[in-house]
Amino acid sequence: MKTLNVQLGARSYPIYIGSGLLDRSDSIRPHIPGRQVLIVSNDTVAHWYRDRLEQALHGLEVDVALIPDGEAHKTLETCNGIFGALLERRFDRTCTLVALGGGVIGDIAGFAAACYQRGVHFVQVPTTLLAQVDSSVGGKTGVNHPLGKNMIGAFHQPLCVVADTDTLSTLPDRELKAGLAEVIKYGLIRDPEFFSWLEEHLDSLLARDNEALAFAIERSCRNKADVVAEDERERGVRALLNLGHTFGHAIEAGCGFGTWLHGEAVAAGTMMAADLSVRLGWLADAERHRAGQIFSRAGLPVHPPKDMSPDAFRRHMSVDKKARDGRLHLVLLRGIGEAVLSGDVPSSHLDATLRATIAAA
Amino acid sequence: MKTLNVQLGARSYPIYIGSGLLDRSDSIRPHIPGRQVLIVSNDTVAHWYRDRLEQALHGLEVDVALIPDGEAHKTLETCNGIFGALLERRFDRTCTLVALGGGVIGDIAGFAAACYQRGVHFVQVPTTLLAQVDSSVGGKTGVNHPLGKNMIGAFHQPLCVVADTDTLSTLPDRELKAGLAEVIKYGLIRDPEFFSWLEEHLDSLLARDNEALAFAIERSCRNKADVVAEDERERGVRALLNLGHTFGHAIEAGCGFGTWLHGEAVAAGTMMAADLSVRLGWLADAERHRAGQIFSRAGLPVHPPKDMSPDAFRRHMSVDKKARDGRLHLVLLRGIGEAVLSGDVPSSHLDATLRATIAAA
Repeated sequence: MKTLNVQLGARSYPIYIGSGLLDRSDSIRPHIPGRQVLIVSNDTVAHWYRDRLEQALHGLEVDVALIPDGEAHKTLETCNGIFGALLERRFDRTCTLVALGGGVIGDIAGFAAACYQRGVHFVQVPTTLLAQVDSSVGGKTGVNHPLGKNMIGAFHQPLCVVADTDTLSTLPDRELKAGLAEVIKYGLIRDPEFFSWLEEHLDSLLARDNEALAFAIERSCRNKADVVAEDERERGVRALLNLGHTFGHAIEAGCGFGTWLHGEAVAAGTMMAADLSVRLGWLADAERHRAGQIFSRAGLPVHPPKDMSPDAFRRHMSVDKKARDGRLHLVLLRGIGEAVLSGDVPSSHLDATLRATIAAA
Repeated sequence: MKTLNVQLGARSYPIYIGSGLLDRSDSIRPHIPGRQVLIVSNDTVAHWYRDRLEQALHGLEVDVALIPDGEAHKTLETCNGIFGALLERRFDRTCTLVALGGGVIGDIAGFAAACYQRGVHFVQVPTTLLAQVDSSVGGKTGVNHPLGKNMIGAFHQPLCVVADTDTLSTLPDRELKAGLAEVIKYGLIRDPEFFSWLEEHLDSLLARDNEALAFAIERSCRNKADVVAEDERERGVRALLNLGHTFGHAIEAGCGFGTWLHGEAVAAGTMMAADLSVRLGWLADAERHRAGQIFSRAGLPVHPPKDMSPDAFRRHMSVDKKARDGRLHLVLLRGIGEAVLSGDVPSSHLDATLRATIAAA
């Protein structure tokens, strides 16, 4: 078991990474301060892992709330169902919510924990690669609104994160690949050495080699933990973690949440950001090519959906959380391993990128 | 204009109290950091004060969202309407929500500000006595759930609070009296000198004497600000501010939110807490009598609703936020000006209080 600490003062917490952690009584249990525990999961994940997790929490008052699967259900309404479950069971301020599942489960359960009685405890047990390397680290929680993704939420740090690599064995191929998009992202934004390692070991990751996966997860979490420790509330450097996300969110919203997986949208969105970076003269074409190559090898899309218009992109991008007083700020690349937050991007360059990348699709 | 500072480190903020503040460009305006402002109000309040507030914010991009009036609409659904209004107008992270109205408006708008894009700025312009002395100070925001009041929420401090005493001129009598319940509460829990002042000046307050009101508001806010500065997250002493609230919330929920005003329920709830305190031998009967006298003189109820059963009380009280691992903690009185948080209250004493106070109604 590898342990990695996210340094946030009084809100610091450990991430445990390894095989067989779900069963170990020394991973989650010591972190739960009260008696009442609500596991939040969905049918699919609960089918595989619920019993093992309940066993590890033996002796506590454990209940389970199953919520519908998928990004389309990441709504205030689903959250309200969790509040109902907590209130029906008379759960008080000392209770703990345990998110067992992917990023959607973690985001919803985390937001429910942030708001229930103005904040209760929270543990993340991510069971997808995406959640293990990204959404379960850093305390961002929230739900979607029909007019924008992740527009309603809170910063709420977990007591601990338990990433059991065994859970990836039941992950569909498409979701494994979507998770790799975020792994590759860390290489692109701040860790060129890791990017090279990924180029070399991508096939092992796709073959689900346990050792390669554990290394990639730990390195990804370490990158994210370093950034979050420096800028918990995203006043500055944390925004760089959103490489590809402004374009990506527009794709997800434009196609209807759940049609493209988040990681797929991030891959295509990153290549759009790379295109814009090349246009601005910031990124060499050869480096954009390297980025495109690794996404393609991972079976990820490198173009936006061809039926989405530049107008649709602009509409969805204008509500992005990185917009400030009407100006759009984008994360762009100056090289492999060097992301920067742009000032106001000239709209002529943005238009050219939208037209060119959609045409290439 | 009186200025009172709530000391919360980086989240410190001023409360301005006085006549004619709504019109003054030096009260709210200097605190707003961005360009986009959404005033959240209801029809009644907006009718009186919207134009004056918009005038004071002249030059900014100001919009208004009107929400339905009353505690029954303090729901996630109403909040979702505010999120929709913000997203339709493309409001970004630099925007500010201004709550113009009573406690319900402040609680909803504050919670919306806490959650929109994981937190935007927020200003309170309370227009009821209750909101000026209680709900607008201290950063508690939230909405109700059908199974419990204020069960969904966040701590989110405003940039400033502007309490214009002129706005009380349009306040219905019943609401003025309900606000006095919380004013009297400060005397009861920690300020015996203020309690004596209230006994002496209650008639001036009921006659809406401006000077008496300004004094009572400032003294109330000072009491609350002191407590909140000591214990922002209600780990200890802040719980004392909830004198009468556990019983009171049960009354509000049992009768249907909005039937009893919050202050009315707090007055009756405080007298129930006083009854229990006398039963436990903590409070002298003469002091309970003084409390009952002043509530009665203010035209407030001193008994619970006679058609509510002890069982209904117990059911609603068991989800109280002060419950911990199944044990009920109540704020009780040891004297005028001395509240204490009880340990586990013997259920025989609680039963006796419920039976006796309901029978007396």
